[in-house]
Amino acid sequence: MHAHDLPTPALLVDADAFAHNMATMSEAWPGPRLRPHVKAFKSTTLARELSAAGHAGFCCATVREMTGMAAAGLGADLLLANEVLDPARLAQLGRLVADGTARVTVAVDSPETVVAAAHAGIHDVLVDVNVGLPRCGCDPVDAPRLADQARAAGLEVRGVMGYEGHLMGVDDRDRRAAGLAVAMEVLAAAHAEVGGAVVSGGGTGTWDLNRSITELQAGSYTLMDTAYDRLGLPFRRALSVLGTVVSVNRAGWAVADVGLKALAMDHGDPSIDGATVWFCSDEHVTWAPTDTPLPRVGDKVRVWPAHVDPTVAKHELLHLIDAGGDVLDVWPVDLRGW
Amino acid sequence: MHAHDLPTPALLVDADAFAHNMATMSEAWPGPRLRPHVKAFKSTTLARELSAAGHAGFCCATVREMTGMAAAGLGADLLLANEVLDPARLAQLGRLVADGTARVTVAVDSPETVVAAAHAGIHDVLVDVNVGLPRCGCDPVDAPRLADQARAAGLEVRGVMGYEGHLMGVDDRDRRAAGLAVAMEVLAAAHAEVGGAVVSGGGTGTWDLNRSITELQAGSYTLMDTAYDRLGLPFRRALSVLGTVVSVNRAGWAVADVGLKALAMDHGDPSIDGATVWFCSDEHVTWAPTDTPLPRVGDKVRVWPAHVDPTVAKHELLHLIDAGGDVLDVWPVDLRGW
Repeated sequence: MHAHDLPTPALLVDADAFAHNMATMSEAWPGPRLRPHVKAFKSTTLARELSAAGHAGFCCATVREMTGMAAAGLGADLLLANEVLDPARLAQLGRLVADGTARVTVAVDSPETVVAAAHAGIHDVLVDVNVGLPRCGCDPVDAPRLADQARAAGLEVRGVMGYEGHLMGVDDRDRRAAGLAVAMEVLAAAHAEVGGAVVSGGGTGTWDLNRSITELQAGSYTLMDTAYDRLGLPFRRALSVLGTVVSVNRAGWAVADVGLKALAMDHGDPSIDGATVWFCSDEHVTWAPTDTPLPRVGDKVRVWPAHVDPTVAKHELLHLIDAGGDVLDVWPVDLRGW
Repeated sequence: MHAHDLPTPALLVDADAFAHNMATMSEAWPGPRLRPHVKAFKSTTLARELSAAGHAGFCCATVREMTGMAAAGLGADLLLANEVLDPARLAQLGRLVADGTARVTVAVDSPETVVAAAHAGIHDVLVDVNVGLPRCGCDPVDAPRLADQARAAGLEVRGVMGYEGHLMGVDDRDRRAAGLAVAMEVLAAAHAEVGGAVVSGGGTGTWDLNRSITELQAGSYTLMDTAYDRLGLPFRRALSVLGTVVSVNRAGWAVADVGLKALAMDHGDPSIDGATVWFCSDEHVTWAPTDTPLPRVGDKVRVWPAHVDPTVAKHELLHLIDAGGDVLDVWPVDLRGW
């Protein structure tokens, strides 16, 4: 089947770009040094490709991602790099531990999250340290006490994690590097007091700068998006949303059926090659070609999302395509929800 | 069950506000004068409430919404207010017509959409006229010719539709009214040449200004959002996303598990009463209380989305709650996808 025969909007993954991205990252962060972040693609089939490339440990953002990965036989070393309080959801993780389906580690950043993890029967934790992003992670000075509380609750403290998310979108590489040095100094100091073998952090935006961690948490590099593309990283855009031109106006614009229900908009409008995107509405993108004639009703168009992770989460299928547009494989997006 | 016992993030619908919104709109646009737009809520259970209030005809944006409504027994008069070219999807609508499950009308704005509708066995169309929003809708001067083409293809032309979407967000009421007068003059002129009983248009933002149409296409008023709330309409915010506080930083911020995968971001950040929202990331919202102490880890918080339609589309359930937070009913969001 050709991509142009798919019902639209349809998520496409360029097989060559995906393979290039995987190979580039795996060369720099081989085997267990890379802990791919499942939240970027939410697909156990895609995760299996990464596992086959030697990356057996994964990062998740939701309990649903954790249980889905375990059910797919990808539970060798799963990290919930997020704070979850829900006893029923944490109990699902406790059951994975109890029945040996998965090795489960969760992030903790407060006494409450320590108690919740211990109560659920989880064994392993990382102390999540705030390294500058105003989000989760304990104050660095609290990290040793939190580690003590975790150990007193019977938990194994595998180490620390710290996510420098405030630096991922800094366009200037030198500024990104300078901010990273500060953030990783904070993390290293916390690690020195907390102990454990693991220092987990980083992401696609700092993949080649962050060398002080023991494992990199990156996911977006697999599929890439126009926001990360601005940084000049060596990863190629692999994810697009295929649309059908449903209306053309001779005043100079065209409309395709790829709207904001099919695209993440938190990083702004998507892009279309050789065109200026005017705006998106629920089911439509309106754009104008820059150098070419207007398309015709029924033509196909590829729309490049500004942010991969929440775009994938709006769809049920990823279609792997070759350079000619033939569909090589279909990967279910089977880890949606919470 | 109380809302605070729901796994989060969870969509809540305030029953009082929803009832008020329904009653207010139904008084101004009774019975068939209102054609509620299903795209705003994507739930046949919610649609059934509107049907019980006398609104038997509905507007849809996708074929999935059309077939789901028909399967739920709500197919008395379904309008696909959107251009669709996909032969397989249109054939689903043709089957609804053939077996009498639904009365199906589709919008057409080009010769291609006329041919596609006729080929699929659809009988009824509206000529979609562009009234100022750079999106779908034919050039007004083309409307009579398109109607002729449709009739020549054996289609019944029920009238015209024109969506003044470019005016929905105009804050100033007088400017909104002035723009509307221009847009509806265009639509009326097209209608005079096209013929048919139906002049369909409007939305929540022009609900009380647009009196020249025979039926109003409005959906957002049912649940409302902070974007429409700015206009000072008499509809109340009914939809929120309940979250759990998963992290608190004594430097002055808190984090809940309501991120941009649970919220539409195309109209900007959500709101939290008594707080300043700093930013959203995939699974989190970071905010600071303005006048109150920081919450505690495990507390619940209600997050008000800026745009209802795509927020609902990210969830599987709507939870109807009373003023005390008790869950009165659970409505599946059963019309997602395309």
